[in-house]
Amino acid sequence: MSRGFYVGRFQPFHNGHQSVLEQIACSSDEIVIGVGSAQVSHTVANPFTAGERVLMLTRSLADLECPFYVIPIEDVQRNALWVAHVRAMTPPFDTVYSANPLVVQLFTEAGVNVRSPDMHERLTHSGTVIRQRMLDGEPWEHLVPPAVVNVIREVHGVERLRQIARSD
Amino acid sequence: MSRGFYVGRFQPFHNGHQSVLEQIACSSDEIVIGVGSAQVSHTVANPFTAGERVLMLTRSLADLECPFYVIPIEDVQRNALWVAHVRAMTPPFDTVYSANPLVVQLFTEAGVNVRSPDMHERLTHSGTVIRQRMLDGEPWEHLVPPAVVNVIREVHGVERLRQIARSD
Amino acid sequence: MSRGFYVGRFQPFHNGHQSVLEQIACSSDEIVIGVGSAQVSHTVANPFTAGERVLMLTRSLADLECPFYVIPIEDVQRNALWVAHVRAMTPPFDTVYSANPLVVQLFTEAGVNVRSPDMHERLTHSGTVIRQRMLDGEPWEHLVPPAVVNVIREVHGVERLRQIARSD
Amino acid sequence: MSRGFYVGRFQPFHNGHQSVLEQIACSSDEIVIGVGSAQVSHTVANPFTAGERVLMLTRSLADLECPFYVIPIEDVQRNALWVAHVRAMTPPFDTVYSANPLVVQLFTEAGVNVRSPDMHERLTHSGTVIRQRMLDGEPWEHLVPPAVVNVIREVHGVERLRQIARSD
Amino acid sequence: MSRGFYVGRFQPFHNGHQSVLEQIACSSDEIVIGVGSAQVSHTVANPFTAGERVLMLTRSLADLECPFYVIPIEDVQRNALWVAHVRAMTPPFDTVYSANPLVVQLFTEAGVNVRSPDMHERLTHSGTVIRQRMLDGEPWEHLVPPAVVNVIREVHGVERLRQIARSD
Amino acid sequence: MSRGFYVGRFQPFHNGHQSVLEQIACSSDEIVIGVGSAQVSHTVANPFTAGERVLMLTRSLADLECPFYVIPIEDVQRNALWVAHVRAMTPPFDTVYSANPLVVQLFTEAGVNVRSPDMHERLTHSGTVIRQRMLDGEPWEHLVPPAVVNVIREVHGVERLRQIARSD
Repeated sequence: MSRGFYVGRFQPFHNGHQSVLEQIACSSDEIVIGVGSAQVSHTVANPFTAGERVLMLTRSLADLECPFYVIPIEDVQRNALWVAHVRAMTPPFDTVYSANPLVVQLFTEAGVNVRSPDMHERLTHSGTVIRQRMLDGEPWEHLVPPAVVNVIREVHGVERLRQIARSD
Repeated sequence: MSRGFYVGRFQPFHNGHQSVLEQIACSSDEIVIGVGSAQVSHTVANPFTAGERVLMLTRSLADLECPFYVIPIEDVQRNALWVAHVRAMTPPFDTVYSANPLVVQLFTEAGVNVRSPDMHERLTHSGTVIRQRMLDGEPWEHLVPPAVVNVIREVHGVERLRQIARSD
Repeated sequence: MSRGFYVGRFQPFHNGHQSVLEQIACSSDEIVIGVGSAQVSHTVANPFTAGERVLMLTRSLADLECPFYVIPIEDVQRNALWVAHVRAMTPPFDTVYSANPLVVQLFTEAGVNVRSPDMHERLTHSGTVIRQRMLDGEPWEHLVPPAVVNVIREVHGVERLRQIARSD
Repeated sequence: MSRGFYVGRFQPFHNGHQSVLEQIACSSDEIVIGVGSAQVSHTVANPFTAGERVLMLTRSLADLECPFYVIPIEDVQRNALWVAHVRAMTPPFDTVYSANPLVVQLFTEAGVNVRSPDMHERLTHSGTVIRQRMLDGEPWEHLVPPAVVNVIREVHGVERLRQIARSD
Repeated sequence: MSRGFYVGRFQPFHNGHQSVLEQIACSSDEIVIGVGSAQVSHTVANPFTAGERVLMLTRSLADLECPFYVIPIEDVQRNALWVAHVRAMTPPFDTVYSANPLVVQLFTEAGVNVRSPDMHERLTHSGTVIRQRMLDGEPWEHLVPPAVVNVIREVHGVERLRQIARSD
Repeated sequence: MSRGFYVGRFQPFHNGHQSVLEQIACSSDEIVIGVGSAQVSHTVANPFTAGERVLMLTRSLADLECPFYVIPIEDVQRNALWVAHVRAMTPPFDTVYSANPLVVQLFTEAGVNVRSPDMHERLTHSGTVIRQRMLDGEPWEHLVPPAVVNVIREVHGVERLRQIARSD
């Protein structure tokens, strides 16, 4: 059985991530999705908890054509240990899909096969852009899957982000 | 939507766990399963990694009648923070199913509804007993779901346990 | 008995903090004062140790009209656990006094009553301004209670700050 | 000004501790009391949080004849750093009062003056004995100051201890 | 160039370690020696600091016939990350020499070549035996290299061990 | 015996460091060299692992006229504990050689003798300049000892740095 690995912070999970996952889903029997920086939440760059992000992903991927695992991965604060940490927290995988230069480097040094997926419409879909639109009161809902809109509303995510971003 | 929470170390996942999860699956719309002490592996009491345990659970529960989440939960080493840590790592839940005295106490102090499931055939199914049978070369396969036997064979789990248990 | 909670880094404790504490002292039977980022010291933004800050507070508040507790609180590096951490380190409290947006958000999410005190003359009294005046050799002593001047002199705090701020 | 330092886990604070503190209070101008293993709670050997222990101490020592500081001190898990950690968290002190062999050794190696107080009626007053009496349903209230009885009742401490001690 | 790796806690470094190192020194061009549990000291089982152990090793091995590195290695508390941690802290090596079952298992799982050296006179030379002899006032100096005797005397190691081992 | 201490991050070890070490080598019987931020690697500012840096130093200093120790030192994230941490990880020393303002302050507060070495040609030799030249494809090899060039080539250090520095 072949298994792929894809990791992101998903703050929040957006259409760009969804598009990549639908694309690489055809390439392996199963996909392991790591929710990175799992222990970080309630900051302007990382407003959502790992649990909230797990919910966003699981609901948005309900129709994905292959089985998937969503695994929160806490930071270990040491790049040289990160690959071993990921491997300990996840089912075994043989291919990593990533465009992140550090992720590519660390898995490549560890001898793991890395492929860079095309990330469509990267800029307009980035988490940074979405969080800024939330702060500015501009529409952001069209940039994420409908299930993500629901999760963010349930946890009052926009209000949380705005409150955290207020100057002291 | 109601959601239940169940936590264990699952070293390994066995028929007793399976039985409890099938029993409580009828009680909530969804179940969140925490894989506790996720960062611990390769010890006599905790031979398997979190990823291996996620695999055991996900495969064994393929026919469970309600949606479930399997979430590795690293220890925070501070009992007073553990409930907040679990909540941050998991989708929101309203009921905890546990017979563990400390888990019961911590969630009860936090005002969460806790129910104690019946744990059938507890002694013979306990992880301690299973690991001892592996060490002693006695049959253990009938005490766990078939998918768990497969995972343990794939990772050479019995050999790992025996090697770790050798006296120095 | 009602108990209030107020938290700051107090680098150093200044007249603005003193004014807030005198104001909220009338509102509860007792006040718990958390010395935040307790483990941080010897940086340009955080020159003083927790123990030095405890000394500044205790001496400056000697005439406060209600009993108070001064409790160093180390960072836990995870916002989602911070409220539980504060609660474990302090006597129970029912009201939080804070103008810090993150503190307000975290306690509000935890269901705790939060009030925002007026912070008089905020800008001129801020710790940042005081540390800059120390670095620039400008008078700063009138911005802090007399007891704070004494503590800083005893520990050679201005010399420490200037040495740390030197470019390497 | 002379300042003494005394440290314990205070699980719970009992008459033996009270007696030592009354004895050494005469020897210094002020006393710093460290609440050790501050981050540990909800275990059979350490049932109470740091905040609960701060409350026990502060109330019981209300009539102490010299000013005192009660400072929670989290473990640093490295004996060689512990003295520096204590010093960073507390106002400066010149004498340590301790009968604990490791505390005596660490402060002595650091060149700090250590004195061993007489600990009257040590055995019957020890925290271990008191916790065992709580578990066994025997009277324990006469072994601690009245204020400690009140704190333990408020937090349902005996019930917590018994629940935690139940076998799984 | 071939490089071997050997790890121990060296509490203290003794003739058995010396004998193993002399034996394996012939097998590689260079040897990397890891001082394990480097952050632990001042306990009955681990009385000496990493720096003291580095000194013991470096002086005792002055006449070793191949170049060697002595590297303190702090614990990472996660067996699954330990091999990556060791590799990050040390010059690259191709062979591990160890009789410790866990070390053997972890490096073997990581695909590293492991050889088990003969450990002559294991029992009488073990660190446990030597520390017990120090506690009991029996001769121990003949069980360690002369340089180790000197280091232990310089740091008053026997007195430290006896003080730490006193009952509280 | 007198022993000096010198600490740096050595990202990478360069001619400026070499020059300082040759200068201070004459002042003590032995030199202890701490490799700071040992746990950090694979970042733009800290591309090399501790083990790679140990190799750079040991090979470059082969002809140094006095015995030396190269000791990786992980960060403890608390300035107030850093001196105790360094002392626990290293053989005892009596003099610190440093031009780093924080290092000077921390050792001075701890009562240790600190001397500031002349750092020749500081700007052109700094690690920042060398890493920038690597990124820009400009010559950097003349700024480091020949042994460092070899280590960086063996580990494909320039390629690693460029990959990590790519924008995501």
